[in-house]
Amino acid sequence: MQEYKSLNAQQRGSLLESLRKEYAAAKGKGLALDMSRGKPGADQLELSDALRDARWVSPPKSENGQDCRNYGMLDGIPEARRLCAELMGHPAEQVIACGNSSLNLMYDYLAQCMLEGAGGGIPWARQESVKFLCPAPGYDRHFVMLERFGIEMINIPMREQGPDMELVEQYARDESVKGLICVPKYSNPEGKTFSEQVVRRLAMLKPAAKDFRVIWDNAYFVHDLYDESDRLWNVLAAAREYGNEDHFIEVVSFSKISFPGAGIAAIAASPANIAAIKARLNAQTISYDKMNQLRHARFFKDAAGVRAHMQKHAEILRPKFRMVLDILERGLGGTGIAKWNAPRGGYFISLDLPGGCAKRTHALLKEAGVVLTPAGATFPYGKDPEDKNLRIAPTFPPVEELREAAELLTLCARIAALEALAE
Amino acid sequence: MQEYKSLNAQQRGSLLESLRKEYAAAKGKGLALDMSRGKPGADQLELSDALRDARWVSPPKSENGQDCRNYGMLDGIPEARRLCAELMGHPAEQVIACGNSSLNLMYDYLAQCMLEGAGGGIPWARQESVKFLCPAPGYDRHFVMLERFGIEMINIPMREQGPDMELVEQYARDESVKGLICVPKYSNPEGKTFSEQVVRRLAMLKPAAKDFRVIWDNAYFVHDLYDESDRLWNVLAAAREYGNEDHFIEVVSFSKISFPGAGIAAIAASPANIAAIKARLNAQTISYDKMNQLRHARFFKDAAGVRAHMQKHAEILRPKFRMVLDILERGLGGTGIAKWNAPRGGYFISLDLPGGCAKRTHALLKEAGVVLTPAGATFPYGKDPEDKNLRIAPTFPPVEELREAAELLTLCARIAALEALAE
Repeated sequence: MQEYKSLNAQQRGSLLESLRKEYAAAKGKGLALDMSRGKPGADQLELSDALRDARWVSPPKSENGQDCRNYGMLDGIPEARRLCAELMGHPAEQVIACGNSSLNLMYDYLAQCMLEGAGGGIPWARQESVKFLCPAPGYDRHFVMLERFGIEMINIPMREQGPDMELVEQYARDESVKGLICVPKYSNPEGKTFSEQVVRRLAMLKPAAKDFRVIWDNAYFVHDLYDESDRLWNVLAAAREYGNEDHFIEVVSFSKISFPGAGIAAIAASPANIAAIKARLNAQTISYDKMNQLRHARFFKDAAGVRAHMQKHAEILRPKFRMVLDILERGLGGTGIAKWNAPRGGYFISLDLPGGCAKRTHALLKEAGVVLTPAGATFPYGKDPEDKNLRIAPTFPPVEELREAAELLTLCARIAALEALAE
Repeated sequence: MQEYKSLNAQQRGSLLESLRKEYAAAKGKGLALDMSRGKPGADQLELSDALRDARWVSPPKSENGQDCRNYGMLDGIPEARRLCAELMGHPAEQVIACGNSSLNLMYDYLAQCMLEGAGGGIPWARQESVKFLCPAPGYDRHFVMLERFGIEMINIPMREQGPDMELVEQYARDESVKGLICVPKYSNPEGKTFSEQVVRRLAMLKPAAKDFRVIWDNAYFVHDLYDESDRLWNVLAAAREYGNEDHFIEVVSFSKISFPGAGIAAIAASPANIAAIKARLNAQTISYDKMNQLRHARFFKDAAGVRAHMQKHAEILRPKFRMVLDILERGLGGTGIAKWNAPRGGYFISLDLPGGCAKRTHALLKEAGVVLTPAGATFPYGKDPEDKNLRIAPTFPPVEELREAAELLTLCARIAALEALAE
C-alpha cells in the first residue's frame, strides 16, 4: 500500500470515498463484536475444567496437616506458597498465597500505604501531595485505582526497553513521588518486557521519598505465546543487592492460568514489607480461601505443571494474535499511518495511529457495532495526550468475530487518518 | 454448693487448699486443650463435604447465562445474591454476594469511610477525631480492626436486651461518634439477641454525625441451636421507615454454614450505600469468586436448604453447649462467684467472674495446658474494665477434651475467686 501522506488531495478524496462505502456496507450488517477486554476465550477456560473435580480437595488437608476447610493459615497453605514462589523466583517466606484477585492485593496494599504509611513513614492520606509514576500506555485499571485514592499520576513514556528511565530518575528526586506502577513483562497494552538494564536501574533507584514503592504487577509472568519468550529480570533479587528490596511489591494471579476471578493470587515483597502486610491482614481477614489454594496446588503441582498448561493456552492464542497481526499488516502496512507491536506474550496488541485519530476510530467502530477499549483508557485519567493509542484484545472473541472486528478496525483507522489528513 | 462469700476465712482456706491439690493433679497430666476460637469442629465440616463435588459448578453458567469461570458480575451471580437476600430478608438489589470473608467486607467498608468518607462526608482519616460505640463484651476482631484504623472505641455495656440504648443515644449527640459495631443476634460472646425495642431505637437514632454508620455483623443470623430460636428484627427495613437506611451496613457469611474461610459472604445496605460500595469495588477488584458462589447457590438451593443444613450443625453443637453448661452449673452453681448465659444460638458461652478474677483464671488454665481466649479480648483495647469476663468457645474441641477443659475452667475460677476473697 502507498504511504498516505504521499497521496495528493484528489487521491486521498477518492480513497476516502471508497472506504466510506465499504464502511457503510459493514455498518449495514448490524454487527455486535467485542474486542475490548483481556478475557480468556471459552476454549481457554475449558483447559482448566478438571480443576472442578472433588479429588483436588480430597482429603482437604494441606501438607502441614492443617484442615483447609477451617480457619487459619493467614499466609496461605505451604504448597500454594511454594508453587507461587517457585514461579515468581522468590523464597516462599517472602510470598503470601492469597485470594482470587491480584488487583485486590494492589488496592489493599495501596490502601494500607494511604492509611498506615509505608516503611514507617507518614500515612500517604496525611501527606500534602502523593504522586505516582505511570509508564504509559498502561493498564487502565491501575489508573482507575490510583485516581480513586487521589494519587496524582505522572505519565512516563514507554520506550522499547521499558519506561523512560531518565525521566523516572528525574521525577524520583521529588519527595512527593511515592512510587511507580507497571506491568513489567508483556506490558499492558504494548506487550513489551522491561530490559535487564531498566530493571537494574529501577532496582538501584535512590528516590527522595523514603516510603517509595513500585507496584510490580507481574500479570503475564508465565503468559508466553512462543517457545522463544521474553525474560524478565527478578526485581526483588536485584533490589536486594542495592539494599532497596523494600521498594518493590510484586503481585501475580492465576486468573489467566485457570479461571479469571476464581483462581488464586500471590504477593511477594521484602521480609519487612511481608511483616507489615501480614500485620494488616491480621485485622482484615481470618484467612483466604485455602480450599481453592489446595485445588490449584494439587492440580498444577509445580512450576513445570503451570508451564505445560500455559503452552496449551498459547496454542489457542497464537492463531488469534497472528490473524490480527496479518490483518493489521494487510490493512495498514505501508500506509505510514499506524504502528503496532507483535508481542511474544500477554493479552494485547497495541495500535498507534496518527495523533487525533484514536477517538475517531473508536467512534467509527462503535457505530459499526464493534466494542474496543475506549480510546484514552490506556493513559492516566483516560487522557491520551496525543489521542493516538488503541488497545486490541484478541483473546476473547471467536476467530471469525475477531477477523471481522480487526478488519473493521483497519478500515476505520484508514478513514480516520484520511479525514485527519484532509483537515 | 454454698455461697463463697458466706464462708468464713477458715472454711475458704481449707476449700482453697483442696482445690489447689486438685489443680496440681490436673496440671500433672500435661494437657493441651483449646477452647479459644469459634471454629466449627471436624464433624461440622463434614456436613458440607459434598460441596466439593464438581456437579455444583457443572455447567459453570449462572442462571443469567454468564460464565462463572470468567471475569464479570462484580455484584455477584443472581442465584447467590438471591440466596443471601432471602436469608437476610432484603431485596436482592440491596445485597452484593462477595468473597470468603465478612470480616474482610467490614474492614474494606471502614477503609472506604476512612479514605473516601461516608455519605458524601469528609473522609474519616481527615477528621480530627473518629469514635465508635462498642457494645461490650463483644467480638475481639472488631476491636482489633477499629484499633488498627485509629478509631477511638467507647465501651457500651451490654444489657439483657442489647446495648445500653440510653448511653448510645447520649454519645450519638457527639458529632465525632461515627458509628457502632455489633453482633446483633447471638452476640459474641454473650449469645444475646437485640430486642425489637433496641433495634427500633437504633433504627430511629438521629446522631449528630451525618456520616454515622452501624456495622451490623449478623454473623449468627441462621445459627440457631434450638427450634425455639431468637428473632432479630430487620434493621434495614426498620431504618427505612425512619429515613435512616443509610446508617446500616449488614454483613453475613457462610463460614459457619459451609467451610470457614472457604464459604461466601454478603453485604447489604441502602441503595445509596450499595452504589458507593460498588463504585469502590470497581476500583478494587474485577469480580469475586463466582465459581464458589455458584457452588454454594446450587448446593444450598434456597433459604430452606440452608435452614435444614443448620439443623444438622445444631444437632452436633447442642450436646457440647449442654455439657459445658452442666459443668458450669455443677462447678460454679450456687457459689455466687459466676454468671453465665445459656444461649439459643451462636458460638460462645460467656462467663462473668468476680472483678479481678478473669486474668488469674486464664493464667491458671494456661499453666494447666488449656488455651482460652485471652481475658480482656472481649473488650476494646483488650481491656476488660472489671477483669471479669471470659469467653468459652465450645464448638471446636472433641467432646472429651471439652469436658476436661470446662471442668478445669470451673476449678480455676473457684481458685481465683477464693484467692480474691482472701485478699
